[in-house]
Order: sequence, then C-alpha cells, then structure tokens
Amino acid sequence: MSLVIIGSVAFDTIETPKERREKIVGGSGTYCALAASYFTRPKLVAVVGDDFPGDVIAFLKKRKVDLRGLEIVQGGKTFHWQGRYGTDPNQRETVRTDLNVFRGFRPEIPPSYKKADILFLANIDPDVQESVVRQVAKPRLTAMDTIGLWINTKREALLRVLRQVDIFFANDEEVRMISGERNLIAAGKKILEMGPSFVVLKKGEHGALILGRNRVFGILAYPCENVVDPTGAGDSFAGGFLGYLDKVGTFTWPEIKRAAAYGSALASFTIEDFGIDRFKTLRLREIEERFFRFRRNASF
Amino acid sequence: MSLVIIGSVAFDTIETPKERREKIVGGSGTYCALAASYFTRPKLVAVVGDDFPGDVIAFLKKRKVDLRGLEIVQGGKTFHWQGRYGTDPNQRETVRTDLNVFRGFRPEIPPSYKKADILFLANIDPDVQESVVRQVAKPRLTAMDTIGLWINTKREALLRVLRQVDIFFANDEEVRMISGERNLIAAGKKILEMGPSFVVLKKGEHGALILGRNRVFGILAYPCENVVDPTGAGDSFAGGFLGYLDKVGTFTWPEIKRAAAYGSALASFTIEDFGIDRFKTLRLREIEERFFRFRRNASF
Repeated sequence: MSLVIIGSVAFDTIETPKERREKIVGGSGTYCALAASYFTRPKLVAVVGDDFPGDVIAFLKKRKVDLRGLEIVQGGKTFHWQGRYGTDPNQRETVRTDLNVFRGFRPEIPPSYKKADILFLANIDPDVQESVVRQVAKPRLTAMDTIGLWINTKREALLRVLRQVDIFFANDEEVRMISGERNLIAAGKKILEMGPSFVVLKKGEHGALILGRNRVFGILAYPCENVVDPTGAGDSFAGGFLGYLDKVGTFTWPEIKRAAAYGSALASFTIEDFGIDRFKTLRLREIEERFFRFRRNASF
Repeated sequence: MSLVIIGSVAFDTIETPKERREKIVGGSGTYCALAASYFTRPKLVAVVGDDFPGDVIAFLKKRKVDLRGLEIVQGGKTFHWQGRYGTDPNQRETVRTDLNVFRGFRPEIPPSYKKADILFLANIDPDVQESVVRQVAKPRLTAMDTIGLWINTKREALLRVLRQVDIFFANDEEVRMISGERNLIAAGKKILEMGPSFVVLKKGEHGALILGRNRVFGILAYPCENVVDPTGAGDSFAGGFLGYLDKVGTFTWPEIKRAAAYGSALASFTIEDFGIDRFKTLRLREIEERFFRFRRNASF
C-alpha cells in the first residue's frame, strides 16, 4: 500500500498564553506525514523555499517520509503562518499568512507517486487539491481537509473536490459553513450527500465523531492536562488515521474505528510540545500503549 | 436498594429559537426522578405550591416515584424558572427565577427515606443539600449537582457539601469556576482533591467524561439531529446514571461506565421533546436499544 499526502510544509509563528515561538517548522503536510510515518512510508507533495532548514529535511527522511514530491524553490521563501491561541485551545486566530512559494504552486506529481492507494489532500488551496486528484490514477481511497478560508473564497472549487473524495476531515465550524446547518449531525448528513462516504468531525479537546451513512462512531480526545501547542493536532489525527489504514490495507468499519483511535493518539502526542518537537522522541510503542488504553477505556 | 433525590419540582418557561412554552413542568428533581424510574423506585424530596398540576403528580406516581417527601404548600406558588436557548443548545440564559415556595425551604426527610443506599443532591441551594445530608444515615453513595449561581453566592456551603459526596456532576464551566483551572482534566483533578471520588463532567452535545483517581472514561452524547428542548438533559443523565447504579447495587468501575451510558441514553430522550413530555411515551425497551447501540458503537 502507499499513501500520498499533498499539504503545506511551512514555518509557523505561534503564540500561546504562556509562550511565543518564532518560525518553527509546521504545516499540514509535515504533521500529517510525520504522524503517518509510524505506520507506512508516506509520500509527501509540497513546496518550500531554500530557507527551509536542512536538519528538518534530514529528520523527515530519517522518519522514512518520501520527499521526491517536495519541491525546493531556489531563492524562494517558505510559506509562513502566524497564529495565536487564547486560553481555550480550541479557539485560534490567524494573525498573518505569507503564502510565499505556495502562491501559484501547481505541483507535479512524481511518477512513483501516481499509483497511490490512499491520497490525502491536506489543507491547501482547493485548486491545488484538484490538480493533484487529476494526476493520481484512481486511488482506493481519497480524503481531504480544508479550512474556513477556502470555504469562503473558493467554494465552487472546494465543492468539486468534495464530490471526488471518500473521507472529509473537518471541524464543527467548517461543516456548518459548508452545509448551512447548525446541528452537527444534520450538517454531517448534508455533506454525505455531497460526495464523501464518511465525514470525520474533529472536535479538538472533545474528540472526534465519524459519520457514515447510517453509522456513527465517536472517540474521545485523550485527556491531556498540559496542552503546550494545539497546532497540528488535526493534521496529526488525519496522518495517524490514514497511515494506519494504509498499513492494514482494508477500509472496513471496524478498521475505520481503530484508525480514529490511532489518529486520536497521534494528535494527543503532537500537542504535548511545540511544533513537530514531540515527534523527535515519539516511539511506536508509546502510540500503541495509548491506543490500547483508549480501547480499554472505551469498552463497557 | 433505594435512591433518594432532593431537587426542584418546578414550572419552566422555555424559549428556543423555534418555540416558546409557558409554565410547563420541569425541575431538577422531576427530570432526575423520571429518568431513574426506569431502573428503581426513586424517593423524591421537594416542595411545590398548590398550583402544581394534579395530573403531573398522578403521572409521577404512575411512574412509581415515591412522593412521600414532596411537600405541597397550601396557598403557595411553585418555583418558576424562565430560560432562553440560542442556536447553540449548550448555551442558555436564565431570564428569570421565582423561588416562591423554595424560599427558605428546609425539607424534612420522611422516616422511610432515611436509610437510602444512594442519595442524590440535585441542583438546589447548598444549605438545603447540607440539611438533607445530615438527615440521611450514611448512604452507600452520595452524589451532588449544582449551578454557577451557588458557586458564586454560596461557595463555602457548597464546598462543605462537596467534601461529603462521592460523585460530583458538573459541566465545564462549573468545574472551572470551582477549581480555578481552565484545563478540564486539571480542573477535575483539583475537585477530586476536594472530596469526591468521581467527577462526572457533563459536556452537552459532546457527551460526558468521568474522572476518577487515575481513571477516565468518556462517553459520546447520542447523536441527536433534532434537539427540541435541552432542558433537563443533565438531570436526566444523573437520574439514569444513579437509577442504574441503584438497580445493580454495585459501584465498580465497569458498572459506573455502564451507568454513564444509561445516563447518556436518558438525556438523549429527554431533549427530543419539551419538558418532561418524552417520558410520557418512553419505554425501557427503547432505552435498552439505545444503550446497546452505544455499546456497539463505542467498541473497536
């Protein structure tokens, strides 16, 4: 099996109520690929400038992330996002976005990526997502994520992509914006009519809800007493989720539930430290421990 | 086993975005007793005026709620609460509270209530809760609920009661107000140091989280597409939870998890109609069905 991820590799400047970090490495593709790397060898499609640190490239390679799809623009500047969290880690404010090399980015998928079993369109301009969908030959499973910005500014393109995916990852606000429904179940159902077979509702500290046609599964967020930096939790969730599915190679409902538990576990580790720092020490054994704890806790 | 509930029996005037209902029957004790009545014969302690409708008294009796502890004040007026819900059913605003017969209420527990196995102090003035604790001889399990009003105005009395209970039911805001901690897990742990062995965090549409010392269990709210009236969800949760524990008579961790699932099921039915109307047709078979669906959904 193989998993192709298209997303951002970026610099983030992050302010939490306790601390500020300047230009640390982040990006939806980065988090997702790192999370998936515990289960499979994810192939990443993204673009950075030549200001992107070589040690992070080396770290991604060490974690067996395939970087043949990572374009490095000489003389270009890496995408930079700046955000601020309040005391509620579920609430964040975008202070500034410098698209830099992502402006007008139209990825060219390496030949070795074109037979992906799973394709994940992480949060990025829906036009870019669409161009990638066109280049990858019929994956067994396609998933996507997005943010409010694209729902507001590129709704048509976004809905076109949505029609072509099997799984849609979104938070409460996003499903409400797309569907026009306030009730989450009603909103999710409406989105299921727009294309996807599953809507994965990411609810931050409240966990995640997977809605299928006539099916629903909820998983608690791992109770975390010390949220250091919530950035990347959703991308890590998706990475753990899809990485696990790529490993098992079957997309049955029981496997989807387990994938959600692995996604939850990965997200819970990511927020324990700033940026991608937690991945530097995280071992599969720790992930498995947390997964089994989830499973034990959930049954009654 | 026997379950004694002290709480309010009241009139509620409720405004939702869609509808307004004038002076329908509600109250923490009413919801809790009705929910518990599917598992046990709850004994209710409360006070009403002689304006309280006889058909509701008859209905409570039909559901085997023991009303020997219900005082009816001749010439008195029943407690009346008025509230308003916005589009987010988790947010409500108290428009008006007329304490009426609850003003200065000091319940006298009937002799037949004094050997309760489980005592539930539903939301009511902590001074009243304390006077009830003093009258009931060592229950095997004592639980309490409260609201922000008492945390603000009667903190000392409330903390005295908290020290004497095994289970504390509260929502996010309440545990934050009591503990001074923003993070829910940290807040819950602080409250566990104040007396209770378990904190049951009611999170509305996000479900509930049970925190014990070194233990945690989360249960999803049953996905409800049509929330008609959120009033009484928390009280029904507590009623289902404690009614089930009273029925099984053992308070092990697995039973506490099952109790939470029954509580969640009861809450999910309550909000399907205004006030206590859903209880008029609700059958145990439907509750069992929802419980088993919860259980099937939760396992992975």
